[in-house]
Amino acid sequence: MATDIKQQALEKHYEWQGKIEVISRAPVNTREDLSLCYTPGVAQACLEIEKDPSLSYKLTRRKNLVAVITDGTAVLGLGDIGGLAGMPVMEGKCCLFKEFAGVDAFPICIKSKDVDEIVRTIELISDSFGGINIEDISAPRCFEIERRLKEKLDIPVFHDDQHGTAVVVGAALINAVRCAGKQMKDITVVINGAGAAGIAIGTFLLNMGIGNLIMVDINGIINRDDKYENPAHAEMAVKSNKNNIKGGLSEAMKGADVFIGVSKPGLVSEDMIKSMAEKPIVFAMANPEPEIMPDKALAAGAYIVGTGRSDFPNQINNVLVFPGIFKGALQCGAKAITEEMKKAAAYAIADIVTPDKLSREYIIPSPLDKSVAEAVATAVEKAAQK
Amino acid sequence: MATDIKQQALEKHYEWQGKIEVISRAPVNTREDLSLCYTPGVAQACLEIEKDPSLSYKLTRRKNLVAVITDGTAVLGLGDIGGLAGMPVMEGKCCLFKEFAGVDAFPICIKSKDVDEIVRTIELISDSFGGINIEDISAPRCFEIERRLKEKLDIPVFHDDQHGTAVVVGAALINAVRCAGKQMKDITVVINGAGAAGIAIGTFLLNMGIGNLIMVDINGIINRDDKYENPAHAEMAVKSNKNNIKGGLSEAMKGADVFIGVSKPGLVSEDMIKSMAEKPIVFAMANPEPEIMPDKALAAGAYIVGTGRSDFPNQINNVLVFPGIFKGALQCGAKAITEEMKKAAAYAIADIVTPDKLSREYIIPSPLDKSVAEAVATAVEKAAQK
Repeated sequence: MATDIKQQALEKHYEWQGKIEVISRAPVNTREDLSLCYTPGVAQACLEIEKDPSLSYKLTRRKNLVAVITDGTAVLGLGDIGGLAGMPVMEGKCCLFKEFAGVDAFPICIKSKDVDEIVRTIELISDSFGGINIEDISAPRCFEIERRLKEKLDIPVFHDDQHGTAVVVGAALINAVRCAGKQMKDITVVINGAGAAGIAIGTFLLNMGIGNLIMVDINGIINRDDKYENPAHAEMAVKSNKNNIKGGLSEAMKGADVFIGVSKPGLVSEDMIKSMAEKPIVFAMANPEPEIMPDKALAAGAYIVGTGRSDFPNQINNVLVFPGIFKGALQCGAKAITEEMKKAAAYAIADIVTPDKLSREYIIPSPLDKSVAEAVATAVEKAAQK
Repeated sequence: MATDIKQQALEKHYEWQGKIEVISRAPVNTREDLSLCYTPGVAQACLEIEKDPSLSYKLTRRKNLVAVITDGTAVLGLGDIGGLAGMPVMEGKCCLFKEFAGVDAFPICIKSKDVDEIVRTIELISDSFGGINIEDISAPRCFEIERRLKEKLDIPVFHDDQHGTAVVVGAALINAVRCAGKQMKDITVVINGAGAAGIAIGTFLLNMGIGNLIMVDINGIINRDDKYENPAHAEMAVKSNKNNIKGGLSEAMKGADVFIGVSKPGLVSEDMIKSMAEKPIVFAMANPEPEIMPDKALAAGAYIVGTGRSDFPNQINNVLVFPGIFKGALQCGAKAITEEMKKAAAYAIADIVTPDKLSREYIIPSPLDKSVAEAVATAVEKAAQK
């Protein structure tokens, strides 16, 4: 990140004095206003909700309100900086919810790293919201936190770092595969990085019907002969790697159709790209520097290259996902965000790029395209109703 | 409450679809916007807060943000209806914070009645806010919750049902005493109702220097010979009732200068008013029906009558207090709301009614007077700086 962007962003943050604001939707200028919005009239709304708790979705803001919650243990690429320091990211996320989907979102940081406490805290405040977006919680804790919250709560719970990323990668892959004239069921996908995002992408792509998945982490290819402490890795050892191959990233890449990097800058060489199947698809999403720079990847024969960056074509950014997914889930009162809803979201995003416009340099809509959230919401709602 | 107000308020609540809204203060229309408000620029704000946590007050919304938190155990006069059903009140409160003082407030309900859990939950989310307004939590639990939160947190914690009410009653009393030509140090005040509000009013008036306080609850006058399970009552037995009188409300009222009711409709008779000292001051604040109706009280010789109602003169409503108190505390970065700050608030509210305007029917500004919050904030800030 260039120094001037750093400096400029910091100045802007001082100027904004917070990136969100809570305003009143009810006027309080007259006696009558006060007696309708507050006492005594408000008592009637309370009594209705007491009789029928589902009316909280009609008589309070809950229907359109998401909590963006973190413990600050895995903020961006900055690591465990704590919840308080993570708040500018959470506020930014809330801005995106509102600006892209009209969904109100409110940032909360939790001052604990204890899984039990985090789960309990979120559970205890969950009646205040219509959905919970957990964010920047380190792996593998995030898996357990999400699983337990889904069991306990009857509102949608979504860990964006996992599922938002998985859905947007899925969307990009749908179009990349279309563009390369391949079939989902035939492709071998290598994912480098087996943290929250990598595991979620792998799981989601398997559910989307890819032919083979090879997960690689710092210890090499995940396979059935090694032992894994992380339960998510142990599960992947069973579900992925059809031919139980072993070795490092170089071995994984040989003959693969797709490389997806959620790892570190510079880990992919030109030789690795050259060793892939024909028309290689490369999503190098490490931030801020990708696993291989697009020009190098293209020179080595990559057919399609995507990154997380806004200064190259095919920016794979989960802002395309979370505003619309939550909008759709809230609109139809879904109790959870299912695999089917996520798939529907991925296809809706992919289909924004019409066949006449689809090209190697345009497989995914711009993160600034505000029509995406509405299309995603509609698709998610349809999927939820099935 | 008239049926039409009930019905109208309910319709309005359906129309509003929530009385608060979370909006974005940062634009996200261009690539540059995204990189300033969100990644990669936002990282810089995070790193600054990590280095110096006090910068959370400059780089996030914390500086102007209060949580309005309830467990729903004592909502209005409705009792223990639960947090979810209490949310319309919390949202209404948030509207008042914003409209009267420009302070952002966000409603949270906690799904637990366990004191330890409530305290811990609020503690764990407290970094997300600049202040905590607890609300509609039943006595005596509210005393312990507030005490423990004040010990644990380094941001202002304020139980409005206690202290907001105490301050606004204090303000009304300052002017009533002025109007009646009496002195604080000479007056005997009877408080009927020894719940959260009654105890807080009593404590505050003692701190303001009244001559004598008689607390009456359902079991009669609190005195030094009876035993009390509720620690707040035991403490009051020591601090109040100089002459250790006993009996019921009738005995308490004899010769008293001031009656303050935070109890039930109709408990005060004309004979009780007649038994008071000369120029009796009567604040009958039970809702919706006062302890004695103003016309009856005046006919029996009351000199000044105040109620909680907007359809009689002298409406004693804590909307005059909490927006300005928090505004002042947030502006100066106060770590707590002290007795001195509360006293300053009471005098600031009283002084809005200038001597030339002060009368038996105008001892307290209108709850709709939006100049009050600013005056309170300024006074509170000054008191905090001492």
